[in-house]
Amino acid sequence: MQKKRLLFFILSYFSFMYIVAQEKKETLTWEIGYHKNAGETPAKWLPSTVPGAVQLDVMKGENYKQPYWYGNNVEQFDWMEDWYFTYRTKFKKPVLGAGQKLYFHSKGIDYHFKVLLNGVELLEQEGMFTYVDIDLTSALKETNELKIVIRPVPKIKEAATFVKGTETYRQNARESAKPAVSYGWDWHPRLVTRGIWDETYLSIRNEAHITTTDITYELNEALTAAQVRLNVEGTSLAGKNFKWLLKDNTGKTVSAQTGQLQSGKEVIIGKLDNIKLWWPNGYGEPVLYTSELELYDAGKKLLDRKVSRIGFRKVKLLMNEGAWDEPNIFPVTRNVSPSSFEINGKRIFAKGTNWVHPEIFVGTITPSLYETQVKLAKEANMNILRVWGGGITNKESFYDYCDQYGMLVWQEFPLACNNYTDDAAYLRVLEQEARSIVSRIKQHASLVLWSGGNELFNSWSRMTDQSLALRMLNSICYQLDPKTPFIYTSPQFGMGHGYYVFADLEKKEELYQWMARANKTAYTEFGVPGAANVEVLKSFIPAAELFPPALNTTWESHHGLGAWGDKRWLDMPVLEHYFGKIESLEDLVKYSQLTQSEGLQFIYEEARRQKPYCSMALNWCFQEPWPSAANNSLLNWPNVIKPAYYAVAKACRPILASVRAPKFSWTKGEAFTGEVFMLNDTHQSLEAGEATVTILFDGKEQTLLNWAFAATKAFENIEGPTARIILPAIKDQFFKIKVTVKGKPEYTSVYTFLFKEAGK
Amino acid sequence: MQKKRLLFFILSYFSFMYIVAQEKKETLTWEIGYHKNAGETPAKWLPSTVPGAVQLDVMKGENYKQPYWYGNNVEQFDWMEDWYFTYRTKFKKPVLGAGQKLYFHSKGIDYHFKVLLNGVELLEQEGMFTYVDIDLTSALKETNELKIVIRPVPKIKEAATFVKGTETYRQNARESAKPAVSYGWDWHPRLVTRGIWDETYLSIRNEAHITTTDITYELNEALTAAQVRLNVEGTSLAGKNFKWLLKDNTGKTVSAQTGQLQSGKEVIIGKLDNIKLWWPNGYGEPVLYTSELELYDAGKKLLDRKVSRIGFRKVKLLMNEGAWDEPNIFPVTRNVSPSSFEINGKRIFAKGTNWVHPEIFVGTITPSLYETQVKLAKEANMNILRVWGGGITNKESFYDYCDQYGMLVWQEFPLACNNYTDDAAYLRVLEQEARSIVSRIKQHASLVLWSGGNELFNSWSRMTDQSLALRMLNSICYQLDPKTPFIYTSPQFGMGHGYYVFADLEKKEELYQWMARANKTAYTEFGVPGAANVEVLKSFIPAAELFPPALNTTWESHHGLGAWGDKRWLDMPVLEHYFGKIESLEDLVKYSQLTQSEGLQFIYEEARRQKPYCSMALNWCFQEPWPSAANNSLLNWPNVIKPAYYAVAKACRPILASVRAPKFSWTKGEAFTGEVFMLNDTHQSLEAGEATVTILFDGKEQTLLNWAFAATKAFENIEGPTARIILPAIKDQFFKIKVTVKGKPEYTSVYTFLFKEAGK
Repeated sequence: MQKKRLLFFILSYFSFMYIVAQEKKETLTWEIGYHKNAGETPAKWLPSTVPGAVQLDVMKGENYKQPYWYGNNVEQFDWMEDWYFTYRTKFKKPVLGAGQKLYFHSKGIDYHFKVLLNGVELLEQEGMFTYVDIDLTSALKETNELKIVIRPVPKIKEAATFVKGTETYRQNARESAKPAVSYGWDWHPRLVTRGIWDETYLSIRNEAHITTTDITYELNEALTAAQVRLNVEGTSLAGKNFKWLLKDNTGKTVSAQTGQLQSGKEVIIGKLDNIKLWWPNGYGEPVLYTSELELYDAGKKLLDRKVSRIGFRKVKLLMNEGAWDEPNIFPVTRNVSPSSFEINGKRIFAKGTNWVHPEIFVGTITPSLYETQVKLAKEANMNILRVWGGGITNKESFYDYCDQYGMLVWQEFPLACNNYTDDAAYLRVLEQEARSIVSRIKQHASLVLWSGGNELFNSWSRMTDQSLALRMLNSICYQLDPKTPFIYTSPQFGMGHGYYVFADLEKKEELYQWMARANKTAYTEFGVPGAANVEVLKSFIPAAELFPPALNTTWESHHGLGAWGDKRWLDMPVLEHYFGKIESLEDLVKYSQLTQSEGLQFIYEEARRQKPYCSMALNWCFQEPWPSAANNSLLNWPNVIKPAYYAVAKACRPILASVRAPKFSWTKGEAFTGEVFMLNDTHQSLEAGEATVTILFDGKEQTLLNWAFAATKAFENIEGPTARIILPAIKDQFFKIKVTVKGKPEYTSVYTFLFKEAGK
Repeated sequence: MQKKRLLFFILSYFSFMYIVAQEKKETLTWEIGYHKNAGETPAKWLPSTVPGAVQLDVMKGENYKQPYWYGNNVEQFDWMEDWYFTYRTKFKKPVLGAGQKLYFHSKGIDYHFKVLLNGVELLEQEGMFTYVDIDLTSALKETNELKIVIRPVPKIKEAATFVKGTETYRQNARESAKPAVSYGWDWHPRLVTRGIWDETYLSIRNEAHITTTDITYELNEALTAAQVRLNVEGTSLAGKNFKWLLKDNTGKTVSAQTGQLQSGKEVIIGKLDNIKLWWPNGYGEPVLYTSELELYDAGKKLLDRKVSRIGFRKVKLLMNEGAWDEPNIFPVTRNVSPSSFEINGKRIFAKGTNWVHPEIFVGTITPSLYETQVKLAKEANMNILRVWGGGITNKESFYDYCDQYGMLVWQEFPLACNNYTDDAAYLRVLEQEARSIVSRIKQHASLVLWSGGNELFNSWSRMTDQSLALRMLNSICYQLDPKTPFIYTSPQFGMGHGYYVFADLEKKEELYQWMARANKTAYTEFGVPGAANVEVLKSFIPAAELFPPALNTTWESHHGLGAWGDKRWLDMPVLEHYFGKIESLEDLVKYSQLTQSEGLQFIYEEARRQKPYCSMALNWCFQEPWPSAANNSLLNWPNVIKPAYYAVAKACRPILASVRAPKFSWTKGEAFTGEVFMLNDTHQSLEAGEATVTILFDGKEQTLLNWAFAATKAFENIEGPTARIILPAIKDQFFKIKVTVKGKPEYTSVYTFLFKEAGK
């Protein structure tokens, strides 16, 4: 047996020399048309860009106002919701070798559709996250017409009674597995995209081919070795020879298996020693191995080949430190839910952000856009992205980049802020979509948490632990991917969401106070709004509307006003409370972005100061899918960095000196106080050192405190003394507090505070 | 087709005339022996009672001290834990008709065992809740020996390091699906029972026979009609004819289906109109229908017959009223979990108790014992039993009686107060046991809630939402019984467990205060200890030890002292705090039982006063499996009623007048206050009426208040005024407060309070 395998190995090694394309992809040229009723043929056909969206094709083909994100142009698309769209393409039967098959393959069609070949229905599917893969071979003619008929936007029966507005309008999403955000949100217009939204092509395959490879592994206790299982499924595999190589990150082959497959569903087992683990950003290298599976016929002809990447890591969601010690006062309820990630046996502090899709038309998202933004998150010292349940499950390249850049992924299913129904028809669609999503994404080293969806156990959603959709998702994740933690929703018990303002004028409170008082296991959403950059505002708001901002202008349609109450997200009353009457667009943007930057810096650092009970800080939100006038995001669409991004990046440094101040606005004679901390999220101890706190105002710098701090343990913060000063008269509008560490300029933090004359 | 069915129906009707026994049961005579190692033969054989327990057989066969529950006799069994026990029985091959088979059938063997026939191993099983059903036919000889070899008590590897004591000793249960309570609890001695514990016999069956029938139904929106599905599985069913009758509670056939089975796994569908629903006690009749499935050969010979009962009801666990209105203070966490039962579209108030098994040797529990105790619960106006996860899943007759008496069942899996492991071997056993338990018990109308187990999310257990055992149980319940609610554990978020004392002397608080302040969705455990009745104490405590109670006597081994700290469950310091030095056993029992009665009356009524936010009240616990010296139970073992039982029965009346007093002990000159309520848990409105509050002392009765209350809505309480009196000098040790309703003596409530001279 061993000899035979060796011989085969040698043969197959040489076969490498003349590899042929195992799957040949043929792109298609598409047209699109719309019609009011199901059976109709469109009155006219327009060229279609695939992947894309039905709206974009009509916009280009019928000379709509462009760009779609300017002013109120988006309203042009409103009429389309209740119309059918049909895609069509024509192709000649390709030349097929012996036993070869022609498949139609699509990685995403949004949302409820039929596929017809030469007028014959081959598939009806509801769900945009389940790949379509249809063997066309037996139905082929010499010339073929393939059609995809897309049904109108799904809405619930009561839709007619809803009033347009984010709170109720989104309820139309609650009987479908479509991303809820497109029905309208406080930062997203009502724009329900549809159409072919991911790679779609004809595929010529050998009769014997691999359909899925699924790799699981069992690490030993010491995390140094693993048994790796490759689960192969395919067509006509029995009797075919395989070669399976695992290569490390240097390209060196570390495991090689060869043999003959016995059936269409097989498990191949490999063993690995001296494993280099995959680590998230800030904790080590995100080492990836490569799996190469090749399929051969009895001779040496390569029939198919699948290459994928694996990262070896162990993930747990542990009880937060101290959470078991909370007092038991009878009658006692349960303790909080665990929210503390342990990766490869070590707790981490999860610093990151909430991820929404980076383009409103998800069909236009490219791998390079994903890479740009994942890199920006990494460069901001983040290690986790929460893929929020109101949006899409991303295309495959997103997860590839997260693997590559060491960015943990918390993946939610497409449920958000609704009471999703227990009805069987919905559960069937959700089950299909969830099985597709889990099977695909569980392969990624970066995937560390499944979540049912967003804010489902809060009063504005009203799902509960008994909702069948959530019990089903838990069950599917347990069946398909039991080693990855699952939570029903965020916030789970102990986590906190919000607030999303710098100050609450009614309660006369600022985030400085409520965050210092909060005692949550994880802050998984919090936001401080900031206006878009000036040049961004000018790019989509007509000049006449630019200043002052007003309702019923582009400021409102782009969520600067009237998005959450009349005032947000610009929140002029808060800005004028601090800064007085604002006279120009430039000042408005400056003050708004200052409060966003200072606010987010405070929250991230405060969450870290609350470690180890607190284990996570994720702001709402990283980016935006179209240009908002004001938003909690760190990036303007498409990739324009707001100042808050840099503030967050600083607050997320692995080690830094930090000062907790009690408020933002000060006046002469008040006693400023600042508690000093050294924050250390690394797995190394922080060496002893000396920190100095100074105050900067009117061009002067004055020392408030020197603190000789002791060395910390690994992953440990240290709390120091409180810096104090009775504030003198200050001429500048702002003063700064700076904390530096001798010989470690990279630990420096600076905070800006407002100085006002008393009574102003 | 219709004609043929009619003909068959007529034929089969007549076939009824000469029904033969379809399954013939043959009882077996057993012997038992013990041995130190796996492969050994016992040195001697003793007669065995089956079902029973290995301890009881040895006790009887070797003249141990009896009864086992007297004094410290239970310690006699300690040595057995690490020994093997082998059962054996001999039988002659029975006469089998053509195609007939002989099965060995057991409904419960505790815990890890092998079954051998004539020295050949037929089965190894870990788990006492999975029925054993083995076809012996092909292995039979003329004379046969059947052996069951039972392994030693399962313990965890670290067992040797544990100190005897309830808190740590029970951890030995955390890698098995054995009831944890037998490893020692604060009301249960260390006594790990083993052996054949449920019906066990040889079964002669026709080749074609039914193995399982599983009935599910889909009620229409109005709950008046149902589609009923009978899922039949069996052996050699293809080609056999069936007749399936559904009969209502008067015996009238309301649905009849006949036909031919095509395979060994079939679904038969019936339809029912004018359904009489099953209701829990206090809300209507627990109507049961009968399903009769008969299997015939091509002629008219009856081959097999299965009869079962069905109750039609719809159950939901809804968010408690008001729980969505709790304030959202940012950062906001999730809302509480839902704990409010809705049965047949109507919310109920769940009044009940925690159920433990009624005999320490579960093999000795008889159907009539189950019936006696379920009836007692019903007669106490209860409607729900929580089958606590520290104990067993009951034998089938328990659930039959719950169906019959309208007693809802909350069934926990065998996990309690431990951090059950994520290890694969344990998960496999738990999965097998859970599938057996769910498949069996889901058939019962009374089953309304699955729960992972007891107090698993509290600091003394330390399981979490991420524990694989719990995610697996949720998944199994979702797969097999999705319509029945599932909770991970009690308390879930919002529920309360405890306290288990009348007063906390350290905190200087009584249950009157902490219960009035508590704000829980459901009080699913709370207790007030009471001494056993005098004659019960005398039956198991040697006369010399009876008074005063002391540690290191039967008072301790029977949990009156040293069970939870030194003082409990007798809690002498509390009794002497109120009643001064106690001079006799009779006084001790009187005072202890008074505080238990008054305390439980207050808690049940307080939980009901907190309706609708509060939806449930279950005391810890109903009965006990052997005689405790003092315990929170309402019944002494075996069925001796303690006074608290009657107090609870009164507090659980569907409608009653209720007074909330602020404390138990009063003195001259204090202002007694009592808030008056009319409590109505029924689905009828309570008519307007007049309530009167009086005080009774020194043989006098004085009116404090008359209250003309308005009619309530269905299921609605009404809160009245507060009765007040400056207490005069009272000669009696106690005074009473009484509330009556004119013309409705059944609504009267009476409360006893202690009167003491100031400073005493």
